[in-house]
Amino acid sequence: MKHRNFKTVPRMIFGRGSFDQLDDVLTEERQKPDDFVVFLVDEVHKDKPLKERLPNQAQDLVIWLDVTDEPKTTYVDALTEQVQAFGKGKNPVSVVGIGGGSSLDIGKAVALLLTNPGGAASYQGWDLIKNPAVHHVGIPTISGTGAEASRTTVLTGPDKKLGMNSDHTVFDQIIMDPDLIAGVPKDQWFYTGMDCYIHNVEALNGTYINEFARAFGEKSSELCHQVFLEDHPDSDEKLMMASYMGGQSIAYSQVGACHALSYGLSYVMGYHHGIGNCIAFNALDDFYPEGVKTFRKMLDKHNITLPKNVCKDLTDAEMDKMIQVSSGMAPLWDNVYGPDWKEKVTPELLRSLYLKM
Amino acid sequence: MKHRNFKTVPRMIFGRGSFDQLDDVLTEERQKPDDFVVFLVDEVHKDKPLKERLPNQAQDLVIWLDVTDEPKTTYVDALTEQVQAFGKGKNPVSVVGIGGGSSLDIGKAVALLLTNPGGAASYQGWDLIKNPAVHHVGIPTISGTGAEASRTTVLTGPDKKLGMNSDHTVFDQIIMDPDLIAGVPKDQWFYTGMDCYIHNVEALNGTYINEFARAFGEKSSELCHQVFLEDHPDSDEKLMMASYMGGQSIAYSQVGACHALSYGLSYVMGYHHGIGNCIAFNALDDFYPEGVKTFRKMLDKHNITLPKNVCKDLTDAEMDKMIQVSSGMAPLWDNVYGPDWKEKVTPELLRSLYLKM
Repeated sequence: MKHRNFKTVPRMIFGRGSFDQLDDVLTEERQKPDDFVVFLVDEVHKDKPLKERLPNQAQDLVIWLDVTDEPKTTYVDALTEQVQAFGKGKNPVSVVGIGGGSSLDIGKAVALLLTNPGGAASYQGWDLIKNPAVHHVGIPTISGTGAEASRTTVLTGPDKKLGMNSDHTVFDQIIMDPDLIAGVPKDQWFYTGMDCYIHNVEALNGTYINEFARAFGEKSSELCHQVFLEDHPDSDEKLMMASYMGGQSIAYSQVGACHALSYGLSYVMGYHHGIGNCIAFNALDDFYPEGVKTFRKMLDKHNITLPKNVCKDLTDAEMDKMIQVSSGMAPLWDNVYGPDWKEKVTPELLRSLYLKM
Repeated sequence: MKHRNFKTVPRMIFGRGSFDQLDDVLTEERQKPDDFVVFLVDEVHKDKPLKERLPNQAQDLVIWLDVTDEPKTTYVDALTEQVQAFGKGKNPVSVVGIGGGSSLDIGKAVALLLTNPGGAASYQGWDLIKNPAVHHVGIPTISGTGAEASRTTVLTGPDKKLGMNSDHTVFDQIIMDPDLIAGVPKDQWFYTGMDCYIHNVEALNGTYINEFARAFGEKSSELCHQVFLEDHPDSDEKLMMASYMGGQSIAYSQVGACHALSYGLSYVMGYHHGIGNCIAFNALDDFYPEGVKTFRKMLDKHNITLPKNVCKDLTDAEMDKMIQVSSGMAPLWDNVYGPDWKEKVTPELLRSLYLKM
């Protein structure tokens, strides 16, 4: 059995105010006068102070990202073409993604597609990317997805929601500045943080885990407890570390039943990943009894009310599609049940779980 | 205030049996027929099964390392010249260090000196290395120093014991195979593991720490508790992760009083780093009361007896030299006491601590 040779983000800056060091990072990449940088920034920052702090120069391109929907392959392709048209045959020396999981994933995807022709949909899968990406930098402004640390960029394509998983996907540099996540609206802060909490529960209870992943997952989980059940003055720092360590943990583990079900909710009903996970997790007492109990305490403490009966108006065709998307997540179910998962993951089981949500 | 832009090992393999994947790693580096690899291996493995598992080819060079003494700049210079003579003007495509902290540090140092002329002593310090190193791989066969993760290579030079600290020092690849640390003699296993436990205590009680370093340091410390105070079937895995995470923690923290004193013991009396730390730590109740209490439980559980009164036969000149070496460790004392450390770290204090050991 071979163990994964795990590619990790090789350079990191952590600390309050470290966003201002982005300029130094980019200066190292800028060599010639016409070298340019592309900033892909969640449009939520368009009228915020962060806009004025972007170290963009006259020759650079700043694009404000619409992340109303989760990233689509078509959107990523369009952005890539926009960058190519701007550069007139020359690639940027760096692509900087700033925002939540969607913006970070778009940053990774555009950096990959600038050097790999043919459109995003053709690279959805594992290790399909051939050429190294353009230098790319990730700067989270909301924490929990682990996108800053991971080797995937999750995209919704014409026929599936699936990442471009590759060593080249990993950021060359991340900047973790806890100041940036201070002003996130509470619901979003909670749902995105729960992405981290939940994937730790899934990983730690899965069959894939090893001691590397366990060490990272346990610490990430402990930090989530501190952030969502206790009160700490440095909870922004802690959440940022929880997210990073949760992402590292996934190197040698996998998510599980909740993510598999949540992918169905996103694909058919358009639920964002964070809230989709919360809706699904709340129905998984039989899978993760302790984790779900603690999750409900977190909901209570922060007065979060989840939508109920979300599947009641679905057509049969929509429900069937959702079941199909969810049962297609083979590695996730394998992580839950082991190699015999197909005997367990029946349409009836999935339907009953969706109807509990 | 700027935060460090921290360079980390970009590729890692973790898992039992993963040593056998070294061949794949090197195959990626071997491009031309005369490309060769240098293996720098602790000579303890010379008559062990590991020797037969080295993936060396006819054109490669295997050097068995004498680590009786801790690595000296002169030894590293001689090894570099040996590699250069062997390569006849061509550098190896990879340098592989296999062993404990000394062997890993020698691997890093030789990889650096093959591309940076002038001898190791001229690079002892911070960020003096100009050129990227030859591709280098680290494979620990004893755990605790954190050398697999760190940006330093500690060397004893003509006038000081000090690392070559640089981003280029960091390994390009590490392989963490818990099988390899299974047969380590108990005393060495304990003393080297305590290097990790102690530097966590120093870092977590220091003034330099941030939440990044705290998260890694706390988890590393917890794993040390499990390894040295409890009984777990996977304690080799846990110790390997403790060592790696301890090394990561140092990115944004620093060791403290114990390491500062231990450097003196090594320089003047030749104590190896691990046992030197243990001797020094045992005298530091006033600095780290909880940590020292737990340390003594670990000593008891494993029936380790430390040497006593180690300084009783020192001449005045030797004691003065030891005090001078220790008080020269400015960043370590700064981490303990803050910027006013010079008022606190008097020769009298250091002498009294040495006499307690």
